[in-house]
Amino acid sequence: MKCRKCGGSAALELRRHNAAFCSPHFIEFFRKQVAEAIHKHRMFTPDEPILVAVSGGKDSLGLWDVLIEEGYRTAGLYLDLGIFDYSQESKAKCEAFAAARGQKLCIERVAGAVGAPIPEVQRVTRRPTCSACGLSKRYLLNRAALEHGYAVVATGHNLDDEAATLFNSVLHWQTEALPRQSPALPSTHPKLARRVKPLYRLSELETAAYAFLRRIDYIVEECPFAKGATSLAHKEVLNRLEEVSPGAKHNFLFGFLDICAFCKLADQVKRRTRPSSAAPGMVE
Amino acid sequence: MKCRKCGGSAALELRRHNAAFCSPHFIEFFRKQVAEAIHKHRMFTPDEPILVAVSGGKDSLGLWDVLIEEGYRTAGLYLDLGIFDYSQESKAKCEAFAAARGQKLCIERVAGAVGAPIPEVQRVTRRPTCSACGLSKRYLLNRAALEHGYAVVATGHNLDDEAATLFNSVLHWQTEALPRQSPALPSTHPKLARRVKPLYRLSELETAAYAFLRRIDYIVEECPFAKGATSLAHKEVLNRLEEVSPGAKHNFLFGFLDICAFCKLADQVKRRTRPSSAAPGMVE
Repeated sequence: MKCRKCGGSAALELRRHNAAFCSPHFIEFFRKQVAEAIHKHRMFTPDEPILVAVSGGKDSLGLWDVLIEEGYRTAGLYLDLGIFDYSQESKAKCEAFAAARGQKLCIERVAGAVGAPIPEVQRVTRRPTCSACGLSKRYLLNRAALEHGYAVVATGHNLDDEAATLFNSVLHWQTEALPRQSPALPSTHPKLARRVKPLYRLSELETAAYAFLRRIDYIVEECPFAKGATSLAHKEVLNRLEEVSPGAKHNFLFGFLDICAFCKLADQVKRRTRPSSAAPGMVE
Repeated sequence: MKCRKCGGSAALELRRHNAAFCSPHFIEFFRKQVAEAIHKHRMFTPDEPILVAVSGGKDSLGLWDVLIEEGYRTAGLYLDLGIFDYSQESKAKCEAFAAARGQKLCIERVAGAVGAPIPEVQRVTRRPTCSACGLSKRYLLNRAALEHGYAVVATGHNLDDEAATLFNSVLHWQTEALPRQSPALPSTHPKLARRVKPLYRLSELETAAYAFLRRIDYIVEECPFAKGATSLAHKEVLNRLEEVSPGAKHNFLFGFLDICAFCKLADQVKRRTRPSSAAPGMVE
Protein backbone atom coordinates (compact mmCIF):
# COMPACT_ATOMS: atom_id res chain seq x y z
CA MET A 1 0.00 0.00 0.00
CA LYS A 2 1.14 3.48 -0.88
CA CYS A 3 0.51 6.84 0.72
CA ARG A 4 -2.20 8.76 -1.13
CA LYS A 5 -0.20 11.99 -0.83
CA CYS A 6 3.44 11.12 -1.51
CA GLY A 7 3.34 7.58 -2.93
CA GLY A 8 5.72 6.44 -0.17
CA SER A 9 5.14 3.33 1.91
CA ALA A 10 1.84 3.63 3.81
CA ALA A 11 1.71 3.21 7.60
CA LEU A 12 -2.07 3.12 7.85
CA GLU A 13 -5.04 2.21 5.66
CA LEU A 14 -8.32 4.04 6.18
CA ARG A 15 -10.89 1.83 4.47
CA ARG A 16 -13.81 4.17 4.97
CA HIS A 17 -11.89 6.90 3.15
CA ASN A 18 -10.54 4.36 0.65
CA ALA A 19 -7.11 5.81 1.39
CA ALA A 20 -3.73 4.99 2.95
CA PHE A 21 -1.11 7.33 4.40
CA CYS A 22 2.52 7.35 5.50
CA SER A 23 3.09 8.60 9.07
CA PRO A 24 3.71 12.30 8.33
CA HIS A 25 0.77 12.49 5.92
CA PHE A 26 -1.54 10.64 8.32
CA ILE A 27 -0.67 13.23 10.98
CA GLU A 28 -1.40 15.96 8.44
CA PHE A 29 -4.70 14.26 7.52
CA PHE A 30 -5.64 13.97 11.22
CA ARG A 31 -4.97 17.65 11.93
CA LYS A 32 -6.89 18.68 8.83
CA GLN A 33 -9.91 16.73 10.05
CA VAL A 34 -9.70 18.56 13.38
CA ALA A 35 -9.34 21.91 11.60
CA GLU A 36 -12.33 21.05 9.42
CA ALA A 37 -14.43 20.21 12.50
CA ILE A 38 -13.44 23.48 14.23
CA HIS A 39 -14.16 25.52 11.11
CA LYS A 40 -17.42 23.80 10.12
CA HIS A 41 -19.01 24.13 13.53
CA ARG A 42 -17.33 27.47 14.41
CA MET A 43 -16.05 25.84 17.60
CA PHE A 44 -13.69 28.65 18.59
CA THR A 45 -11.60 31.45 17.15
CA PRO A 46 -7.76 31.30 16.82
CA ASP A 47 -7.18 33.62 19.80
CA GLU A 48 -9.82 32.25 22.15
CA PRO A 49 -8.50 30.40 25.23
CA ILE A 50 -9.71 26.79 25.33
CA LEU A 51 -10.08 24.49 28.31
CA VAL A 52 -9.32 20.92 27.20
CA ALA A 53 -10.85 18.18 29.36
CA VAL A 54 -8.18 15.48 29.62
CA SER A 55 -8.58 11.99 31.06
CA GLY A 56 -5.09 10.70 30.32
CA GLY A 57 -6.38 8.59 27.43
CA LYS A 58 -5.39 8.69 23.76
CA ASP A 59 -8.33 10.80 22.61
CA SER A 60 -8.12 13.76 24.96
CA LEU A 61 -4.29 13.90 25.01
CA GLY A 62 -4.27 13.54 21.21
CA LEU A 63 -6.72 16.44 20.96
CA TRP A 64 -4.66 18.58 23.29
CA ASP A 65 -1.55 17.78 21.22
CA VAL A 66 -3.23 18.90 17.99
CA LEU A 67 -4.49 22.14 19.54
CA ILE A 68 -1.05 22.98 20.96
CA GLU A 69 0.63 22.21 17.61
CA GLU A 70 -1.88 24.41 15.79
CA GLY A 71 -0.96 27.30 18.10
CA TYR A 72 -4.15 27.56 20.16
CA ARG A 73 -4.04 28.96 23.70
CA THR A 74 -5.01 25.99 25.85
CA ALA A 75 -5.03 24.70 29.39
CA GLY A 76 -5.82 21.14 30.44
CA LEU A 77 -8.41 20.20 33.02
CA TYR A 78 -8.07 16.86 34.77
CA LEU A 79 -10.97 15.61 36.90
CA ASP A 80 -9.71 13.26 39.57
CA LEU A 81 -12.55 10.74 39.95
CA GLY A 82 -10.82 8.88 42.77
CA ILE A 83 -11.06 5.52 41.01
CA PHE A 84 -8.17 3.70 42.73
CA ASP A 85 -4.96 3.14 40.68
CA TYR A 86 -6.76 4.02 37.47
CA SER A 87 -7.15 7.66 38.54
CA GLN A 88 -3.63 7.91 39.93
CA GLU A 89 -2.06 6.60 36.73
CA SER A 90 -4.18 8.69 34.42
CA LYS A 91 -3.44 11.85 36.43
CA ALA A 92 0.29 11.12 36.20
CA LYS A 93 0.00 10.80 32.38
CA CYS A 94 -1.72 14.19 32.18
CA GLU A 95 0.83 15.86 34.44
CA ALA A 96 3.76 14.47 32.47
CA PHE A 97 2.14 15.53 29.16
CA ALA A 98 1.53 19.10 30.41
CA ALA A 99 4.99 19.45 31.97
CA ALA A 100 6.79 18.23 28.82
CA ARG A 101 4.92 20.83 26.75
CA GLY A 102 5.02 23.69 29.28
CA GLN A 103 1.18 23.82 29.47
CA LYS A 104 -1.04 24.68 32.40
CA LEU A 105 -3.01 21.78 33.91
CA CYS A 106 -5.88 22.40 36.34
CA ILE A 107 -6.85 19.50 38.59
CA GLU A 108 -10.24 19.12 40.25
CA ARG A 109 -11.08 16.39 42.75
CA VAL A 110 -14.56 14.92 42.39
CA ALA A 111 -14.42 13.85 46.04
CA GLY A 112 -13.95 17.51 47.05
CA ALA A 113 -17.04 18.67 45.17
CA VAL A 114 -19.38 15.68 45.42
CA GLY A 115 -18.31 14.66 48.92
CA ALA A 116 -16.88 11.28 47.97
CA PRO A 117 -14.91 9.63 45.14
CA ILE A 118 -16.85 7.82 42.38
CA PRO A 119 -16.62 4.29 43.89
CA GLU A 120 -18.25 5.69 47.06
CA VAL A 121 -20.85 7.62 45.02
CA GLN A 122 -21.73 4.35 43.33
CA ARG A 123 -22.18 2.64 46.70
CA VAL A 124 -24.46 5.23 48.27
CA THR A 125 -26.65 6.16 45.27
CA ARG A 126 -28.72 3.88 43.08
CA ARG A 127 -27.56 5.44 39.81
CA PRO A 128 -25.48 3.31 37.44
CA THR A 129 -21.81 4.29 37.92
CA CYS A 130 -21.33 5.74 34.42
CA SER A 131 -24.43 7.87 34.82
CA ALA A 132 -23.39 9.36 38.19
CA CYS A 133 -19.84 9.85 36.92
CA GLY A 134 -20.96 11.51 33.66
CA LEU A 135 -23.25 13.86 35.54
CA SER A 136 -20.48 14.84 37.98
CA LYS A 137 -18.01 15.36 35.14
CA ARG A 138 -20.35 17.62 33.15
CA TYR A 139 -21.03 19.71 36.25
CA LEU A 140 -17.39 20.03 37.33
CA LEU A 141 -16.11 20.70 33.81
CA ASN A 142 -18.44 23.61 33.55
CA ARG A 143 -17.70 24.92 37.04
CA ALA A 144 -13.97 24.83 36.34
CA ALA A 145 -14.46 26.66 33.02
CA LEU A 146 -16.47 29.34 34.80
CA GLU A 147 -13.94 29.73 37.65
CA HIS A 148 -10.92 29.89 35.38
CA GLY A 149 -12.63 32.15 32.83
CA TYR A 150 -12.95 29.85 29.80
CA ALA A 151 -15.98 30.26 27.52
CA VAL A 152 -15.38 26.95 25.76
CA VAL A 153 -14.54 23.40 26.88
CA ALA A 154 -13.16 20.89 24.34
CA THR A 155 -13.56 17.15 24.95
CA GLY A 156 -11.93 14.18 23.21
CA HIS A 157 -15.14 12.44 22.03
CA ASN A 158 -14.37 10.67 18.77
CA LEU A 159 -16.52 9.29 15.93
CA ASP A 160 -17.00 5.96 17.72
CA ASP A 161 -18.15 7.68 20.92
CA GLU A 162 -20.60 9.87 19.07
CA ALA A 163 -21.93 7.02 16.91
CA ALA A 164 -22.40 4.81 20.01
CA THR A 165 -24.32 7.56 21.84
CA LEU A 166 -26.53 8.15 18.80
CA PHE A 167 -27.03 4.40 18.42
CA ASN A 168 -28.18 4.14 22.02
CA SER A 169 -30.63 7.03 21.62
CA VAL A 170 -32.04 5.49 18.46
CA LEU A 171 -32.32 1.95 19.87
CA HIS A 172 -34.42 3.36 22.71
CA TRP A 173 -36.12 6.01 20.54
CA GLN A 174 -34.97 8.71 22.97
CA THR A 175 -35.86 11.38 20.46
CA GLU A 176 -35.54 14.12 23.07
CA ALA A 177 -31.80 13.34 23.32
CA LEU A 178 -31.17 13.89 19.60
CA PRO A 179 -30.99 17.70 19.49
CA ARG A 180 -28.24 17.59 22.15
CA GLN A 181 -26.15 15.23 19.98
CA SER A 182 -23.98 17.76 18.21
CA PRO A 183 -20.23 18.32 17.72
CA ALA A 184 -20.75 21.82 19.14
CA LEU A 185 -23.17 22.61 21.95
CA PRO A 186 -23.75 26.33 22.36
CA SER A 187 -23.97 28.04 25.72
CA THR A 188 -27.61 28.15 26.79
CA HIS A 189 -27.04 30.19 29.97
CA PRO A 190 -24.45 32.86 30.97
CA LYS A 191 -22.94 30.42 33.47
CA LEU A 192 -22.71 27.48 31.04
CA ALA A 193 -19.63 27.17 28.81
CA ARG A 194 -19.87 26.03 25.19
CA ARG A 195 -18.87 22.38 24.67
CA VAL A 196 -17.12 21.22 21.51
CA LYS A 197 -15.84 17.87 20.20
CA PRO A 198 -13.12 18.57 17.61
CA LEU A 199 -12.39 14.81 17.15
CA TYR A 200 -15.92 13.83 16.08
CA ARG A 201 -14.74 13.21 12.49
CA LEU A 202 -12.00 10.76 13.58
CA SER A 203 -12.49 7.14 14.54
CA GLU A 204 -11.07 5.50 17.65
CA LEU A 205 -8.59 3.60 15.48
CA GLU A 206 -7.41 6.90 14.03
CA THR A 207 -7.00 8.63 17.40
CA ALA A 208 -5.04 5.60 18.64
CA ALA A 209 -2.80 5.76 15.56
CA TYR A 210 -2.27 9.51 16.03
CA ALA A 211 -1.30 9.09 19.70
CA PHE A 212 1.04 6.24 18.76
CA LEU A 213 2.72 8.11 15.91
CA ARG A 214 3.09 11.24 18.05
CA ARG A 215 4.62 9.12 20.86
CA ILE A 216 2.06 10.34 23.36
CA ASP A 217 2.31 8.41 26.62
CA TYR A 218 -1.33 7.69 27.51
CA ILE A 219 -3.21 5.31 29.79
CA VAL A 220 -4.29 2.25 27.80
CA GLU A 221 -6.61 0.64 30.37
CA GLU A 222 -10.33 1.36 30.26
CA CYS A 223 -11.97 2.66 33.42
CA PRO A 224 -12.62 -0.42 35.64
CA PHE A 225 -16.29 0.57 35.94
CA ALA A 226 -16.77 0.53 32.15
CA LYS A 227 -16.70 -3.28 32.03
CA GLY A 228 -20.04 -4.58 30.80
CA ALA A 229 -21.30 -1.08 30.01
CA THR A 230 -23.83 -1.12 27.18
CA SER A 231 -21.86 1.64 25.46
CA LEU A 232 -19.05 -0.90 24.97
CA ALA A 233 -21.51 -3.48 23.55
CA HIS A 234 -22.81 -0.80 21.21
CA LYS A 235 -19.30 0.07 20.06
CA GLU A 236 -18.60 -3.61 19.42
CA VAL A 237 -21.77 -3.93 17.37
CA LEU A 238 -20.95 -0.80 15.36
CA ASN A 239 -17.48 -2.19 14.69
CA ARG A 240 -19.07 -5.37 13.39
CA LEU A 241 -21.22 -3.32 11.00
CA GLU A 242 -18.10 -1.40 9.99
CA GLU A 243 -16.37 -4.67 9.12
CA VAL A 244 -19.24 -5.69 6.84
CA SER A 245 -19.53 -2.27 5.23
CA PRO A 246 -16.64 0.15 5.76
CA GLY A 247 -17.97 3.62 6.47
CA ALA A 248 -21.13 2.35 8.25
CA LYS A 249 -20.29 4.22 11.48
CA HIS A 250 -19.35 7.39 9.65
CA ASN A 251 -22.48 7.29 7.47
CA PHE A 252 -24.70 6.63 10.47
CA LEU A 253 -23.37 9.64 12.40
CA PHE A 254 -22.94 12.01 9.47
CA GLY A 255 -26.29 11.04 7.95
CA PHE A 256 -27.86 12.11 11.23
CA LEU A 257 -25.83 15.33 11.47
CA ASP A 258 -26.86 16.25 7.90
CA ILE A 259 -30.53 15.74 8.68
CA CYS A 260 -30.00 17.72 11.84
CA ALA A 261 -28.33 20.54 9.91
CA PHE A 262 -31.46 20.73 7.78
CA CYS A 263 -33.63 20.88 10.90
CA LYS A 264 -31.47 23.67 12.27
CA LEU A 265 -31.77 25.58 9.01
CA ALA A 266 -35.55 25.14 9.00
CA ASP A 267 -35.65 26.20 12.63
CA GLN A 268 -33.55 29.28 11.89
CA VAL A 269 -35.87 30.29 9.08
CA LYS A 270 -38.87 29.84 11.37
CA ARG A 271 -37.27 32.00 14.06
CA ARG A 272 -36.40 34.73 11.60
CA THR A 273 -39.85 34.82 10.08
CA ARG A 274 -41.79 34.40 13.34
CA PRO A 275 -39.37 35.62 16.03
CA SER A 276 -41.70 34.89 18.95
CA SER A 277 -42.24 31.17 18.30
CA ALA A 278 -38.95 29.49 19.26
CA ALA A 279 -39.32 25.72 18.93
CA PRO A 280 -39.13 24.12 22.39
CA GLY A 281 -36.22 21.79 23.04
CA MET A 282 -34.23 22.91 20.00
CA VAL A 283 -30.62 23.90 20.49
CA GLU A 284 -29.85 27.25 18.85
CA MET B 1 -38.08 -24.11 34.60
CA LYS B 2 -41.83 -24.27 34.90
CA CYS B 3 -44.64 -23.26 32.56
CA ARG B 4 -46.08 -19.87 33.52
CA LYS B 5 -49.60 -21.14 32.87
CA CYS B 6 -49.81 -24.68 34.28
CA GLY B 7 -46.65 -25.05 36.35
CA GLY B 8 -45.70 -28.12 34.30
CA SER B 9 -42.22 -28.67 32.86
CA ALA B 10 -41.38 -25.82 30.45
CA ALA B 11 -40.32 -26.55 26.86
CA LEU B 12 -39.24 -23.00 26.04
CA GLU B 13 -37.98 -19.94 27.89
CA LEU B 14 -38.83 -16.49 26.51
CA ARG B 15 -36.35 -14.19 28.23
CA ARG B 16 -37.76 -10.97 26.81
CA HIS B 17 -41.16 -11.87 28.30
CA ASN B 18 -39.48 -13.21 31.44
CA ALA B 19 -41.62 -16.33 30.97
CA ALA B 20 -41.44 -20.03 30.14
CA PHE B 21 -44.10 -22.32 28.65
CA CYS B 22 -44.84 -26.00 28.14
CA SER B 23 -45.58 -26.99 24.51
CA PRO B 24 -49.40 -26.61 24.55
CA HIS B 25 -49.22 -23.29 26.39
CA PHE B 26 -46.49 -21.97 24.11
CA ILE B 27 -48.74 -22.76 21.13
CA GLU B 28 -51.59 -20.95 22.89
CA PHE B 29 -49.29 -17.99 23.64
CA PHE B 30 -48.15 -17.90 20.00
CA ARG B 31 -51.71 -17.87 18.64
CA LYS B 32 -52.74 -15.19 21.13
CA GLN B 33 -49.91 -12.98 19.90
CA VAL B 34 -51.15 -13.44 16.32
CA ALA B 35 -54.74 -12.70 17.41
CA GLU B 36 -53.53 -9.58 19.24
CA ALA B 37 -51.68 -8.39 16.12
CA ILE B 38 -54.76 -8.94 13.92
CA HIS B 39 -57.04 -7.19 16.40
CA LYS B 40 -54.76 -4.27 17.22
CA HIS B 41 -54.10 -3.35 13.60
CA ARG B 42 -57.56 -4.38 12.31
CA MET B 43 -55.79 -6.59 9.76
CA PHE B 44 -58.90 -8.44 8.58
CA THR B 45 -62.37 -9.53 9.71
CA PRO B 46 -63.21 -13.16 10.63
CA ASP B 47 -65.08 -13.82 7.36
CA GLU B 48 -62.73 -12.04 4.96
CA PRO B 49 -60.78 -14.31 2.59
CA ILE B 50 -57.01 -13.98 3.05
CA LEU B 51 -54.23 -14.71 0.60
CA VAL B 52 -51.20 -16.01 2.53
CA ALA B 53 -47.85 -15.58 0.78
CA VAL B 54 -45.90 -18.78 1.48
CA SER B 55 -42.23 -19.42 0.77
CA GLY B 56 -42.01 -22.90 2.27
CA GLY B 57 -40.16 -21.54 5.32
CA LYS B 58 -41.11 -21.75 9.00
CA ASP B 59 -42.57 -18.26 9.22
CA SER B 60 -45.05 -18.27 6.36
CA LEU B 61 -46.14 -21.91 6.87
CA GLY B 62 -46.44 -21.26 10.62
CA LEU B 63 -48.62 -18.24 9.89
CA TRP B 64 -50.80 -20.22 7.49
CA ASP B 65 -51.17 -22.94 10.13
CA VAL B 66 -52.34 -20.45 12.77
CA LEU B 67 -54.86 -18.83 10.41
CA ILE B 68 -56.29 -22.24 9.38
CA GLU B 69 -56.53 -23.34 13.03
CA GLU B 70 -58.28 -20.10 13.95
CA GLY B 71 -60.90 -20.79 11.27
CA TYR B 72 -60.00 -18.10 8.75
CA ARG B 73 -60.77 -18.59 5.04
CA THR B 74 -57.34 -18.75 3.43
CA ALA B 75 -55.53 -19.71 0.27
CA GLY B 76 -51.76 -19.92 -0.12
CA LEU B 77 -49.77 -18.18 -2.82
CA TYR B 78 -46.38 -19.57 -3.76
CA LEU B 79 -44.11 -17.49 -6.00
CA ASP B 80 -41.74 -19.74 -7.90
CA LEU B 81 -38.57 -17.65 -8.16
CA GLY B 82 -36.78 -20.27 -10.26
CA ILE B 83 -33.79 -20.43 -7.90
CA PHE B 84 -32.52 -23.92 -8.74
CA ASP B 85 -33.11 -26.70 -6.16
CA TYR B 86 -34.03 -24.15 -3.51
CA SER B 87 -37.22 -23.21 -5.36
CA GLN B 88 -38.12 -26.80 -6.21
CA GLU B 89 -37.79 -27.94 -2.62
CA SER B 90 -39.63 -25.00 -1.13
CA LYS B 91 -42.49 -25.42 -3.62
CA ALA B 92 -42.79 -29.09 -2.67
CA LYS B 93 -43.03 -28.12 1.03
CA CYS B 94 -45.86 -25.70 0.27
CA GLU B 95 -47.72 -28.22 -1.89
CA ALA B 96 -47.46 -30.93 0.76
CA PHE B 97 -48.61 -28.51 3.48
CA ALA B 98 -51.66 -27.39 1.45
CA ALA B 99 -52.61 -30.93 0.38
CA ALA B 100 -52.42 -32.30 3.95
CA ARG B 101 -54.77 -29.54 5.14
CA GLY B 102 -57.10 -29.49 2.11
CA GLN B 103 -56.23 -25.86 1.31
CA LYS B 104 -56.00 -24.12 -2.03
CA LEU B 105 -52.49 -23.18 -3.20
CA CYS B 106 -51.95 -20.78 -6.10
CA ILE B 107 -48.57 -20.93 -7.82
CA GLU B 108 -47.07 -18.09 -9.86
CA ARG B 109 -43.86 -18.36 -11.82
CA VAL B 110 -41.65 -15.30 -11.71
CA ALA B 111 -40.07 -16.38 -14.98
CA GLY B 112 -43.49 -16.22 -16.66
CA ALA B 113 -44.14 -12.65 -15.53
CA VAL B 114 -40.66 -11.11 -15.51
CA GLY B 115 -39.38 -13.04 -18.53
CA ALA B 116 -36.66 -14.97 -16.69
CA PRO B 117 -36.06 -16.65 -13.33
CA ILE B 118 -34.31 -14.66 -10.56
CA PRO B 119 -30.75 -15.94 -11.26
CA GLU B 120 -31.12 -14.70 -14.85
CA VAL B 121 -32.65 -11.39 -13.68
CA GLN B 122 -29.60 -10.93 -11.50
CA ARG B 123 -27.28 -11.53 -14.45
CA VAL B 124 -28.91 -9.09 -16.86
CA THR B 125 -29.73 -6.22 -14.49
CA ARG B 126 -27.40 -4.32 -12.19
CA ARG B 127 -29.74 -4.43 -9.19
CA PRO B 128 -28.64 -6.41 -6.13
CA THR B 129 -30.43 -9.81 -6.26
CA CYS B 130 -32.52 -9.27 -3.12
CA SER B 131 -33.69 -5.90 -4.39
CA ALA B 132 -34.83 -7.24 -7.81
CA CYS B 133 -36.40 -10.28 -6.15
CA GLY B 134 -38.24 -8.22 -3.52
CA LEU B 135 -39.58 -5.87 -6.17
CA SER B 136 -40.81 -8.78 -8.32
CA LYS B 137 -42.41 -10.47 -5.32
CA ARG B 138 -44.29 -7.36 -4.20
CA TYR B 139 -45.61 -6.85 -7.74
CA LEU B 140 -46.65 -10.47 -8.30
CA LEU B 141 -48.19 -10.86 -4.85
CA ASN B 142 -50.43 -7.93 -5.55
CA ARG B 143 -51.27 -9.04 -9.09
CA ALA B 144 -52.25 -12.50 -7.83
CA ALA B 145 -54.42 -10.98 -5.08
CA LEU B 146 -56.16 -8.82 -7.66
CA GLU B 147 -56.69 -11.69 -10.11
CA HIS B 148 -57.98 -14.11 -7.49
CA GLY B 149 -60.13 -11.50 -5.76
CA TYR B 150 -58.34 -11.09 -2.40
CA ALA B 151 -58.37 -7.66 -0.75
CA VAL B 152 -55.68 -8.60 1.74
CA VAL B 153 -52.31 -10.40 1.54
CA ALA B 154 -50.69 -11.78 4.71
CA THR B 155 -46.92 -12.33 4.85
CA GLY B 156 -44.79 -14.19 7.39
CA HIS B 157 -42.52 -11.29 8.42
CA ASN B 158 -41.57 -11.76 12.06
CA LEU B 159 -40.19 -9.44 14.75
CA ASP B 160 -36.59 -10.08 13.64
CA ASP B 161 -37.42 -9.24 10.01
CA GLU B 162 -39.18 -6.05 10.97
CA ALA B 163 -36.50 -4.98 13.45
CA ALA B 164 -33.77 -5.63 10.83
CA THR B 165 -35.60 -3.56 8.21
CA LEU B 166 -36.11 -0.72 10.68
CA PHE B 167 -32.47 -1.00 11.74
CA ASN B 168 -31.36 -0.67 8.13
CA SER B 169 -33.57 2.38 7.56
CA VAL B 170 -32.26 4.02 10.70
CA LEU B 171 -28.58 3.24 10.01
CA HIS B 172 -28.95 4.98 6.64
CA TRP B 173 -31.40 7.60 7.93
CA GLN B 174 -33.85 6.64 5.22
CA THR B 175 -36.59 8.57 6.96
CA GLU B 176 -38.86 8.35 3.92
CA ALA B 177 -39.02 4.55 4.43
CA LEU B 178 -40.31 4.82 8.01
CA PRO B 179 -44.00 5.51 7.34
CA ARG B 180 -44.13 2.32 5.23
CA GLN B 181 -42.76 0.24 8.13
CA SER B 182 -46.00 -0.92 9.65
CA PRO B 183 -47.55 -4.28 10.58
CA ALA B 184 -50.53 -3.31 8.39
CA LEU B 185 -50.19 -1.37 5.16
CA PRO B 186 -53.52 -0.07 3.90
CA SER B 187 -54.53 -0.15 0.25
CA THR B 188 -53.53 3.14 -1.36
CA HIS B 189 -55.10 2.41 -4.76
CA PRO B 190 -58.13 0.34 -5.89
CA LYS B 191 -55.77 -2.14 -7.57
CA LEU B 192 -53.44 -2.52 -4.56
CA ALA B 193 -54.29 -5.10 -1.88
CA ARG B 194 -53.72 -4.40 1.81
CA ARG B 195 -50.60 -6.05 3.22
CA VAL B 196 -50.47 -7.37 6.78
CA LYS B 197 -47.83 -9.06 8.95
CA PRO B 198 -49.60 -11.00 11.71
CA LEU B 199 -46.29 -12.43 13.05
CA TYR B 200 -44.64 -9.06 13.75
CA ARG B 201 -44.93 -9.61 17.53
CA LEU B 202 -43.10 -12.97 17.41
CA SER B 203 -39.36 -13.50 17.15
CA GLU B 204 -37.64 -15.82 14.71
CA LEU B 205 -36.82 -18.16 17.57
CA GLU B 206 -40.50 -18.29 18.47
CA THR B 207 -41.70 -18.98 14.91
CA ALA B 208 -39.10 -21.76 14.64
CA ALA B 209 -40.32 -23.25 17.93
CA TYR B 210 -43.94 -23.05 16.78
CA ALA B 211 -43.18 -24.79 13.46
CA PHE B 212 -41.21 -27.46 15.30
CA LEU B 213 -43.88 -28.10 17.94
CA ARG B 214 -46.61 -28.19 15.27
CA ARG B 215 -44.51 -30.65 13.23
CA ILE B 216 -44.60 -28.43 10.17
CA ASP B 217 -42.28 -29.72 7.46
CA TYR B 218 -40.54 -26.56 6.19
CA ILE B 219 -37.42 -25.75 4.20
CA VAL B 220 -34.57 -25.00 6.59
CA GLU B 221 -32.03 -23.65 4.09
CA GLU B 222 -31.78 -19.93 3.48
CA CYS B 223 -32.10 -18.69 -0.10
CA PRO B 224 -28.63 -19.18 -1.70
CA PHE B 225 -28.61 -15.53 -2.76
CA ALA B 226 -29.08 -14.34 0.84
CA LYS B 227 -25.49 -15.21 1.79
CA GLY B 228 -23.61 -12.05 2.72
CA ALA B 229 -26.77 -9.95 2.56
CA THR B 230 -26.57 -6.97 4.89
CA SER B 231 -29.99 -7.93 6.29
CA LEU B 232 -28.35 -11.07 7.74
CA ALA B 233 -25.51 -9.00 9.25
CA HIS B 234 -28.11 -6.70 10.77
CA LYS B 235 -30.02 -9.64 12.25
CA GLU B 236 -26.78 -10.97 13.71
CA VAL B 237 -26.01 -7.61 15.28
CA LEU B 238 -29.54 -7.31 16.71
CA ASN B 239 -29.19 -10.80 18.18
CA ARG B 240 -25.95 -9.69 19.82
CA LEU B 241 -27.76 -6.73 21.38
CA GLU B 242 -30.56 -9.09 22.46
CA GLU B 243 -27.99 -11.28 24.24
CA VAL B 244 -26.66 -8.30 26.20
CA SER B 245 -30.12 -6.96 27.01
CA PRO B 246 -33.08 -9.30 26.45
CA GLY B 247 -35.94 -7.41 24.84
CA ALA B 248 -33.65 -5.04 22.91
CA LYS B 249 -35.11 -6.07 19.53
CA HIS B 250 -38.68 -5.91 20.80
CA ASN B 251 -38.16 -2.51 22.44
CA PHE B 252 -36.48 -1.12 19.33
CA LEU B 253 -39.37 -2.13 17.04
CA PHE B 254 -42.21 -1.45 19.45
CA GLY B 255 -40.69 1.86 20.61
CA PHE B 256 -40.78 2.93 16.99
CA LEU B 257 -44.32 1.65 16.39
CA ASP B 258 -45.52 3.53 19.50
CA ILE B 259 -43.97 6.77 18.28
CA CYS B 260 -45.47 6.07 14.90
CA ALA B 261 -48.91 5.48 16.43
CA PHE B 262 -48.68 8.92 17.99
CA CYS B 263 -47.72 10.44 14.63
CA LYS B 264 -50.70 8.72 13.02
CA LEU B 265 -52.98 10.03 15.74
CA ALA B 266 -51.62 13.55 15.32
CA ASP B 267 -51.98 13.20 11.57
CA GLN B 268 -55.56 12.03 11.92
CA VAL B 269 -56.41 15.00 14.12
CA LYS B 270 -54.83 17.36 11.58
CA ARG B 271 -56.83 15.82 8.74
CA ARG B 272 -60.06 16.04 10.66
CA THR B 273 -59.53 19.64 11.68
CA ARG B 274 -58.06 20.82 8.36
CA PRO B 275 -59.42 18.32 5.81
CA SER B 276 -57.64 19.87 2.81
CA SER B 277 -54.07 19.64 4.13
CA ALA B 278 -53.14 15.96 3.96
CA ALA B 279 -49.53 15.54 5.05
CA PRO B 280 -47.45 14.44 2.04
CA GLY B 281 -45.80 11.03 2.24
CA MET B 282 -47.93 9.81 5.14
CA VAL B 283 -49.65 6.47 4.82
CA GLU B 284 -53.32 6.74 5.77
